[in-house]
Amino acid sequence: MEYSKGIKAWRTIRSARCSPESLHEFCGVFGIFGDQRAAEKAYLGLYALQHRGQESAGIAASDGEKISIHKGMGLVWSVFAHPDVMPSLAGASAIAHNRYSTTGVSDLVNAQPLVVTIDGQSVAVAHNGNLVNSLSLRTMLEKAGSIFQTTTDSEIVLHLIARSQKASIEERIIEALSFIEGAYCFLFLTTSAIIAARDPYGFRPLCLGRLGSATTVASESCAFDIIGGDYIRTIDPGEIITIDTSGVSSRHLPAEERKALCIFEYIYFSRPDSLIFGEKVDKVRRRLGKRLALEAPADADIVIAVPDSANTAALGYAQASGLRFEIGLIRNHYVGRTFIAPHQRERDRDVRVKFNPVSGVLQNKRVVVVDDSIVRATTLRQLIRLIRSAGAAQIHVRVGSPPVRCPCFYGIDISTHGELIASSHSIEEIRRYLEADSLAYLSVEGMLDVTPHGDSHCTACFTGCYPTDIAENVSGGHCSMVHMSA
Amino acid sequence: MEYSKGIKAWRTIRSARCSPESLHEFCGVFGIFGDQRAAEKAYLGLYALQHRGQESAGIAASDGEKISIHKGMGLVWSVFAHPDVMPSLAGASAIAHNRYSTTGVSDLVNAQPLVVTIDGQSVAVAHNGNLVNSLSLRTMLEKAGSIFQTTTDSEIVLHLIARSQKASIEERIIEALSFIEGAYCFLFLTTSAIIAARDPYGFRPLCLGRLGSATTVASESCAFDIIGGDYIRTIDPGEIITIDTSGVSSRHLPAEERKALCIFEYIYFSRPDSLIFGEKVDKVRRRLGKRLALEAPADADIVIAVPDSANTAALGYAQASGLRFEIGLIRNHYVGRTFIAPHQRERDRDVRVKFNPVSGVLQNKRVVVVDDSIVRATTLRQLIRLIRSAGAAQIHVRVGSPPVRCPCFYGIDISTHGELIASSHSIEEIRRYLEADSLAYLSVEGMLDVTPHGDSHCTACFTGCYPTDIAENVSGGHCSMVHMSA
Amino acid sequence: MEYSKGIKAWRTIRSARCSPESLHEFCGVFGIFGDQRAAEKAYLGLYALQHRGQESAGIAASDGEKISIHKGMGLVWSVFAHPDVMPSLAGASAIAHNRYSTTGVSDLVNAQPLVVTIDGQSVAVAHNGNLVNSLSLRTMLEKAGSIFQTTTDSEIVLHLIARSQKASIEERIIEALSFIEGAYCFLFLTTSAIIAARDPYGFRPLCLGRLGSATTVASESCAFDIIGGDYIRTIDPGEIITIDTSGVSSRHLPAEERKALCIFEYIYFSRPDSLIFGEKVDKVRRRLGKRLALEAPADADIVIAVPDSANTAALGYAQASGLRFEIGLIRNHYVGRTFIAPHQRERDRDVRVKFNPVSGVLQNKRVVVVDDSIVRATTLRQLIRLIRSAGAAQIHVRVGSPPVRCPCFYGIDISTHGELIASSHSIEEIRRYLEADSLAYLSVEGMLDVTPHGDSHCTACFTGCYPTDIAENVSGGHCSMVHMSA
Amino acid sequence: MEYSKGIKAWRTIRSARCSPESLHEFCGVFGIFGDQRAAEKAYLGLYALQHRGQESAGIAASDGEKISIHKGMGLVWSVFAHPDVMPSLAGASAIAHNRYSTTGVSDLVNAQPLVVTIDGQSVAVAHNGNLVNSLSLRTMLEKAGSIFQTTTDSEIVLHLIARSQKASIEERIIEALSFIEGAYCFLFLTTSAIIAARDPYGFRPLCLGRLGSATTVASESCAFDIIGGDYIRTIDPGEIITIDTSGVSSRHLPAEERKALCIFEYIYFSRPDSLIFGEKVDKVRRRLGKRLALEAPADADIVIAVPDSANTAALGYAQASGLRFEIGLIRNHYVGRTFIAPHQRERDRDVRVKFNPVSGVLQNKRVVVVDDSIVRATTLRQLIRLIRSAGAAQIHVRVGSPPVRCPCFYGIDISTHGELIASSHSIEEIRRYLEADSLAYLSVEGMLDVTPHGDSHCTACFTGCYPTDIAENVSGGHCSMVHMSA
Repeated sequence: MEYSKGIKAWRTIRSARCSPESLHEFCGVFGIFGDQRAAEKAYLGLYALQHRGQESAGIAASDGEKISIHKGMGLVWSVFAHPDVMPSLAGASAIAHNRYSTTGVSDLVNAQPLVVTIDGQSVAVAHNGNLVNSLSLRTMLEKAGSIFQTTTDSEIVLHLIARSQKASIEERIIEALSFIEGAYCFLFLTTSAIIAARDPYGFRPLCLGRLGSATTVASESCAFDIIGGDYIRTIDPGEIITIDTSGVSSRHLPAEERKALCIFEYIYFSRPDSLIFGEKVDKVRRRLGKRLALEAPADADIVIAVPDSANTAALGYAQASGLRFEIGLIRNHYVGRTFIAPHQRERDRDVRVKFNPVSGVLQNKRVVVVDDSIVRATTLRQLIRLIRSAGAAQIHVRVGSPPVRCPCFYGIDISTHGELIASSHSIEEIRRYLEADSLAYLSVEGMLDVTPHGDSHCTACFTGCYPTDIAENVSGGHCSMVHMSA
Repeated sequence: MEYSKGIKAWRTIRSARCSPESLHEFCGVFGIFGDQRAAEKAYLGLYALQHRGQESAGIAASDGEKISIHKGMGLVWSVFAHPDVMPSLAGASAIAHNRYSTTGVSDLVNAQPLVVTIDGQSVAVAHNGNLVNSLSLRTMLEKAGSIFQTTTDSEIVLHLIARSQKASIEERIIEALSFIEGAYCFLFLTTSAIIAARDPYGFRPLCLGRLGSATTVASESCAFDIIGGDYIRTIDPGEIITIDTSGVSSRHLPAEERKALCIFEYIYFSRPDSLIFGEKVDKVRRRLGKRLALEAPADADIVIAVPDSANTAALGYAQASGLRFEIGLIRNHYVGRTFIAPHQRERDRDVRVKFNPVSGVLQNKRVVVVDDSIVRATTLRQLIRLIRSAGAAQIHVRVGSPPVRCPCFYGIDISTHGELIASSHSIEEIRRYLEADSLAYLSVEGMLDVTPHGDSHCTACFTGCYPTDIAENVSGGHCSMVHMSA
Repeated sequence: MEYSKGIKAWRTIRSARCSPESLHEFCGVFGIFGDQRAAEKAYLGLYALQHRGQESAGIAASDGEKISIHKGMGLVWSVFAHPDVMPSLAGASAIAHNRYSTTGVSDLVNAQPLVVTIDGQSVAVAHNGNLVNSLSLRTMLEKAGSIFQTTTDSEIVLHLIARSQKASIEERIIEALSFIEGAYCFLFLTTSAIIAARDPYGFRPLCLGRLGSATTVASESCAFDIIGGDYIRTIDPGEIITIDTSGVSSRHLPAEERKALCIFEYIYFSRPDSLIFGEKVDKVRRRLGKRLALEAPADADIVIAVPDSANTAALGYAQASGLRFEIGLIRNHYVGRTFIAPHQRERDRDVRVKFNPVSGVLQNKRVVVVDDSIVRATTLRQLIRLIRSAGAAQIHVRVGSPPVRCPCFYGIDISTHGELIASSHSIEEIRRYLEADSLAYLSVEGMLDVTPHGDSHCTACFTGCYPTDIAENVSGGHCSMVHMSA
Repeated sequence: MEYSKGIKAWRTIRSARCSPESLHEFCGVFGIFGDQRAAEKAYLGLYALQHRGQESAGIAASDGEKISIHKGMGLVWSVFAHPDVMPSLAGASAIAHNRYSTTGVSDLVNAQPLVVTIDGQSVAVAHNGNLVNSLSLRTMLEKAGSIFQTTTDSEIVLHLIARSQKASIEERIIEALSFIEGAYCFLFLTTSAIIAARDPYGFRPLCLGRLGSATTVASESCAFDIIGGDYIRTIDPGEIITIDTSGVSSRHLPAEERKALCIFEYIYFSRPDSLIFGEKVDKVRRRLGKRLALEAPADADIVIAVPDSANTAALGYAQASGLRFEIGLIRNHYVGRTFIAPHQRERDRDVRVKFNPVSGVLQNKRVVVVDDSIVRATTLRQLIRLIRSAGAAQIHVRVGSPPVRCPCFYGIDISTHGELIASSHSIEEIRRYLEADSLAYLSVEGMLDVTPHGDSHCTACFTGCYPTDIAENVSGGHCSMVHMSA
C-alpha cells in the first residue's frame, strides 16, 4: 500500500479538512538521555524512523542548562545538512520528532519538538498520535485565556502542564495527561530529564532501550539498531517513564478497561525489522500472509508483492501456498518531489514513475499480487493495469488485512468514509474496479488469530468498534460506531 | 553613526545579554485596511522602513475569514522573493513588521507578526518598542499558567488579551495595554479590523495615512510615500485607533503626566524624508546641524558628513558656518554579510569595506567631520584615521547631539554603560581616543531648543532622566537615574 | 553490491586520481525527437535512469531554432525542481544525461549535456562511457590549438567534429568518431536532428524506442516504460542513427573484429526491469543465480539477497537450490547525504544507516547471502557482521559473478588494482576477511554460459582480457593484460 | 544617472539583442600576485568594484601548481558566502571579475574568469571591454575548427592564444592580442604569472598597485584602497605587464595613431574616490559641474543631485554658481530584486521605491537638478514629477555631459539609437518630455576643456566619432559615423 508515501495525492484531500481538530499526524519519536553526543544519536534515530514522517524533522537537545532546538521541513538529512546545525545541538539529552502532515508553506510552525517556557523552565515536547478530545480541551483552554500558536495536540498538553498547580514538572505532566484522551506517545525534555508517556489504551508503540550507559526511547526498535543500541522492553500502556541522572523510574496513569494497540502498525506502518508492542513486525506480517494463503488460496503460478510494504506478507503467502515468490514490480527509490506537468496529472503517470513491472517475470503467468491493505484502491488499480500490460495472464489480488471501512481517529491518516472504497463498495465491486481476476481479503478473525494481542488490539478501521468516545470527531457517516469500552 | 547597520559588530555584544528581558528591538511597523492588494502595499511599506530593521520581515494578511502569514530572516526583498509567497497573502487588510535583533539560527521563532488563536479567533500582532515591566508580567503570566514560545514583548500582550474577560477584542486589547508600561506601538490584525495603539508616553512614532479609500498606519511617513499615499496625522500618545469597515474610530488610554517622544528618532533613527511626531525629520536634523555650528564653530576649510546618517546635519552645519560642504567619504552600499577571514578581524578592514575617503577633497584641508551621534566611537576613530591618511591637515569632529551617557530601555539599542564611551570618558579623553584635532558635541539645551517638542521628548540617553520606572531593567550603573515623572 | 551508490566512500578514492584521463563516468542518456513536450519526457527518462548517475543531471532541448540547456548537481528531481526550469526547455527534441562522477564543488563545469557552437551551429552532446585514447587525442588537439574547458571525453569529440572538413554535421560526427577508441554511447542534438552513436565494440547499451510518432533513444529500456513508450530494438555496435523530420536513418562505423558488450551491465549496473543488448536484465540475472546454485550449493536453511541489486540473483539461487527465499536485510531508502560526525566515521555506522537485519528471519538459521559481485568487500564484511549479530547460525556467501580482478577502462568505476580485493587475495583469504563460513563465486565459464552474447561480452574485469589497446591507461599492475583482438 | 543599476529595466532591452556580437559588458577586474591570501584580497577588490558589475562574480586562484575557480550569479558577498568557498581558493596569486550582463538562467556559463587548458597548461582569463571584430574572429576560428562554449570575447582570445605557435604563453598572448581590435583590459592567470593587457586605444582604465611585497592590478584604484594597498601608476594603452616571481616586466603592443580613453568613465561609470587614467575621478567630475554652472547658469534657490552618481557634479555646480547644495532626494540602498506585481509595472512605482523627495528641502524652491548624463530620460522624467509633487516651484535640469546621441561599441551599455532620446529629439523636445522648466547640457568643448586627456578621449557616444572601425557592429542608424583614425 502506497498511501503513506503518496504525499502529493493526499495533500489535496488533507487540505480540504485542515481545521485544527482534524489534523491527524503520523509521527516518529526518539529520545536519549546520558550520551555526550545525544543529538547525533537522535539524528540517526530519526533517520531510521523516517518512514513514520517525511514532512518535517526536529531535534531538541539539553546540555543541563538550556534547551537548543532545530527543526525544518523535509527529510531528516536535508533538515540537518547545514554544517552549523549539529554542533548547535549540544548536550547529553535530546528528543526528536519526524512528522507527516502538512497543509502549506508556513506549516513549519507546527513542526515538532515544540519548546516553551513554563513558569521559568524550558520544556520541549514531541508527540505521536491524536487526541480525541482536543477540540473541547482547546476551547476550554482558550476560554480560560490560553493562546494557541499552532494547531498541534502537543500545544494543548503544554497548556495543561502550565496550568497545573502541582509542584514538580513530572506531577504537572501526569495531571495534564489525566485530562486528555486518545492516542499518544509523548516525550518531554526538560533541562534535567526526559519524561516519556504512552496513553492507557496503548494505541501507538513506544520502546525503551539502552546505548552503553545512556537510556533511549523510540517509536520502534529499529531506531536502537541504527545506533548500535539494545532494545529493553515496550513501555506499557499508561506508563510514564522518567529518565534523569538518578536513573529510570516508572509510574502509571489509571488503567483503561481495555487496551487498543493499533493493529495497523503491524499490518503496514512499522518497519518489518522493528519490534513493537513486544513482538517483531516481520513475524506478525509473515503470519498474516500465511493465514491469507490458507483463507484465500489462488490457482496461480507466482506470488508477487506490492513493494516494499507487502514484501513480508507476500513471502508468507508464498511459503504457505507453495507458490513461487517473485519480484514482479521494481520500485524507484529516488523519491523527491517529482515534477508533474499540469497536463500529465493522469494518475497513470504517477504510478509509472514509482513502479515498473518486470515483464520477464510476469509474462503469461497467473499472478497473485499481495498487498498489505487497500484504502482507496486507486494506486492498486493502476498497478494491476501495469502488471497486465506486462503480459500477466491472470491477476489475483490478495490483501493481508480485512477491508478498511471506517476512519481512524488515533493518528493513522484514514480519515473519511469517502476515501475508503470498502466503506461503500462490496468486495465484488472493488474487484471490478481493480480489474482483477479475483480479490480476497484476510478476515478479521484470521487477522486477530495471528496478531499477538488479540482483543487488546484496536481494529476500528476494519470493524468500526472505536475504543474511545469519538463524538467530537464524527460528523455523520454510516459506520456502526460501537464504543467498545461502553 | 553606523551602529544600526553594524550588524556584525553588535551581534557579539547582543549575544552576551540575550536574556528575554534585555532583548531590545528596533522595528518598523506598517498596516493597511481596505485595499484589495493589501499585502503588496505592506511589502512596499516594509521596503521603505527597511532601515528600522534588517534581520527579519513579515506580513500577516486577512481576507475577512482567515489570517495568512509569511515571515523570514533577512532583508524584505529576499524574504518575499519566492513567487509563491505574495499570492499566498490574500486579502484587503494586512500588517507588517521589520525587526532588527537576532541571537542565532533559530531566531525565526521571534520574528513578527505573531499569529495566535485567542478564544477561537485569529489575531496577529506587530510591535515596535520595548516594555519596561515585561519581566514581572511574564513571571506573573507564567505563574498563572501561560506558556511562552518566544521571548518577545508581543507574546506578553497576547497573553494579557487572552486572559481579559472583556467581551470584544478591542476592549480586551485596551485592558491588556493597561497592564503594560514602556515604549510601544502595536498593530493588531483580526479578520475584521486593524487596531493600532501607541503608548501614553509616545516614545515611538506612529502615523496615520490614507491610500485612496484605504487607511494606513506606519512608523514613519516614508512608508506612505512609497505607495503613493498621503500622510494624515500622527497618532497621539496613548491613542488607540480601530480601523474596520465602519471607518476609523479613536479612543485613548489614561494619559501619563508627561510625554516622552524619543529624541533619537530625530537625531538618527528615522529617515530624513519622513515626517514623525508631526514634524519633518530633515528639518529638525538640519536645525541640529545649524545650532551645532553656532555652539561649536571650527576654523576649517570644508565640512563633510559621516554618510548617510549625518548628511543633513552636516549640510546645516555648512550653511550656518559658511564653510563649504563636501563629500569626503564614499559609502559602499552593496551591503550584505561581508566575508571576513578570521585573521582579518581588525576593525580597520571593516571600515575600509564600508567607506573610502575622497583624497582629492580632503588633501591638505582642515576638515569638519559632522556625525549625528557617538555611541562607542570605534568606527569614528577608524574613519578619522582614514580621513587623515587621505591627506587631511586637521580634523575637527562635531557631533549633532549631546554625549550619549546612559542606556536606553525603550527600544533603541544603546543598552549598557560599558558600550557608551561618554559614560566613562571626558570629552577630551574621547577626542584623544578619536585622534581628532578638536571635538565638540551639541548641548542638551541647544538640542531641545531646536527639536519641536521640548520637554515632551525623552532625553534619557543623554541625561539619565528616565520617564518611566526602570527598576526592572537596571542592575547597577552610575547613571543618575532620575525618574522624571516622580 | 553497494558500490555504485556508496558515493561517499568512493569520493575519497576518486579524488586521488582525478587527472583528466582517469575520470571514469557511469552515465545514463536519453533522447527524444518529435514530441511537443520533449523536455518533460526527457525528465522522466532521466528519472528512470537515475541509478546510472546521481551526481548531476541535465537536459538540452531544441525548438528547431535554438538549443536551451539546464543542468545542475544533484538528483534529477532537485535539479529540475524550480518552476521556471521546465518551461524554459521548449521544443520537440531533447537529449538528457545523468552523471555519476564528481571531484569537487566546481564540477558543474563537467556536467552534461555540453552545448557548443561549431561553425555557427549549436550542438549539444551527452555521453556515456570512457574513451581509451582520450589522453593522446587531447594532447594532439591541444597542440593543434584547441582549448579545453572541461575534463570530459565529450569535449574531445566536439573538437574533432569542429575540425572535420566534411560538409554536413552528420559526416563530421562520423569522421570524429573514427578517431576515438573506447566505450561510448553518444547522443548529439542539433537544432534539426538527434544523432545517436554506439561504439563498434558495443560496450555500453543503447536502445531505440518509440512514443506515438516520436522516436526515443535511451541507455536502458526502463526509460521508455516510464513515459508509456515502446522498445523497438537495440542500436547495434558501431551503428549511427540519425533522427530528423524525414525519419530514422542508420549507418555504420567500420566493424571491430570482436564485440565487447559489458557483462557487468547484466550483473549489476542496469535495472532488472530493463532490456539491454536485446535481452531482459532480469532474465539474465536470474540465470546467473540459478547457475551459481548449481556450481556452489550450500547446506543451508534460507537464501537472502544483499538488497536491492542481488535480489534477482538470489531468487534464482533459491529457485534452483530449493531453499526458501527470505528478506533478511531491510534497506533504508531515504537516501541523501547522511550526516556523519568526524568521530563516527567507523564504517560500522555507515552500513547500519543503510541496512537493518531482520532478526526474526535470521535467528538460528543457516543463511546463504547472495551478492551480485564483490569489489572491495568492505561493505559486505560489515553486512556479514550485522547478519551474524542478528542471530544467524551460519553464513554462506555466494557471489553471482566471478572474482573482480582487473580494473575497467570502459566506464565502470573499478579502476585500480588496490581497490579490488580479488586482485591480491585468494578466495580463502577473502572468506576469512569477510568472516563468512563459506564463500563461492560463479565461474567465468558459468557466467558466459548463461549470458546471451557469450564471447561477444567484455569480461576484462574478471579475466584481464581487454578488448582494446589500453596502454594509455595503465601504469603498471600485475593483471595479465591480454589484448584479445590482437 | 541610474541606468547601470536599473537592472530590471535594461534586461528587457538586452534580451532583444543578445546575439553574441552585441553582448556588451560592463566589468571590473582585479588581480594580485605574491600574497598568501590572494583570494581574500581579490574578494575585497571585487567588493570595491561591485558598481562595475552586479550580475556575476568570480575568482580564480593559483597555488603555483593548479588553478582553482569559483564563480556565481549575484553580488560578490553572496557568491562567496558559503564557508567552503574561500578556503578552496588557495594560493598566492588570483584574478577576479565582476560582470554586468545577463540574458537568462543559464548565463553562468558566461561568467568569468574562464579557465581552460591550453596545450596542457591551465590558463584563466578575466576581461573588461568589448571587441569590435569579435564576429569575424569568431567566424574565422569556427571555420578553423574551434568550438565555442560561451558568447564572451574572452573565449575568442583564448582560442587565439591556443592557436599561436609561439613558445611561451606570454608571446602567445601578445600574438593573440595582435588579432583583436576594440576595448579591452585582460588579466590572464597562469600557474606561475599574471599577465595584464590594455588595448592600444586605452578605452578602459587599468591601474597598477602594490600591497606590501605583492603586486596588484585593478580597473580602478578604489580596489587598492580597500585592501590597504597603494596605487603606483596607470597601465599604458597597449601595455602588457607580466608579473611573476622575477618581478614586474612591461612591453608594448604596436601603438595606435590615437588614444581613446573612455570619457564616460569620468562622467559616470567609475567611483568618485577612484583614480583612473592617472587622474582622480572626483576632481574631473567636480570640474564638469563647475563648467556646467558657467555654461548654463540658472536663476534658482538650491542645487540638488540625482544621487549618488551626480553628487560630485552637483557640488561643483553649487560651488561655481554660489547656489546652496541640498539633499533633495533620498535614495533607498536596500537594493535587491524588488517585488513588482504585474499590475504595478508602472514606472512610477519603480522610481518611488528607489527615491523619495525631501519635501522640506524642496517646497516652494526653484531647484537646479544636476544629473551626470541622460540616456533614455525615463527615470529622470519620473524623478522630476516626484520633485514637483514635493512642492518645488521650478525645476531646472542641468546635465554634466553633452547629449548622448550614438551607441557605444566599447563596453558601455548604450547600444541602440532607439534608446537614446537625444539621437532623435531636440533639447527642447527633451525638456518638454521631462516636464522641466529648463534643460541644459554641458557642451562637448566644455567637457573636453576640463577632462584631463583632451583629444585622447573617446567621445563617440556624444559625437559619433568612433576611434575604430565599427562596420561589424552597425546595422544602419543615422549617426555620422566618422572613423577618426582614418
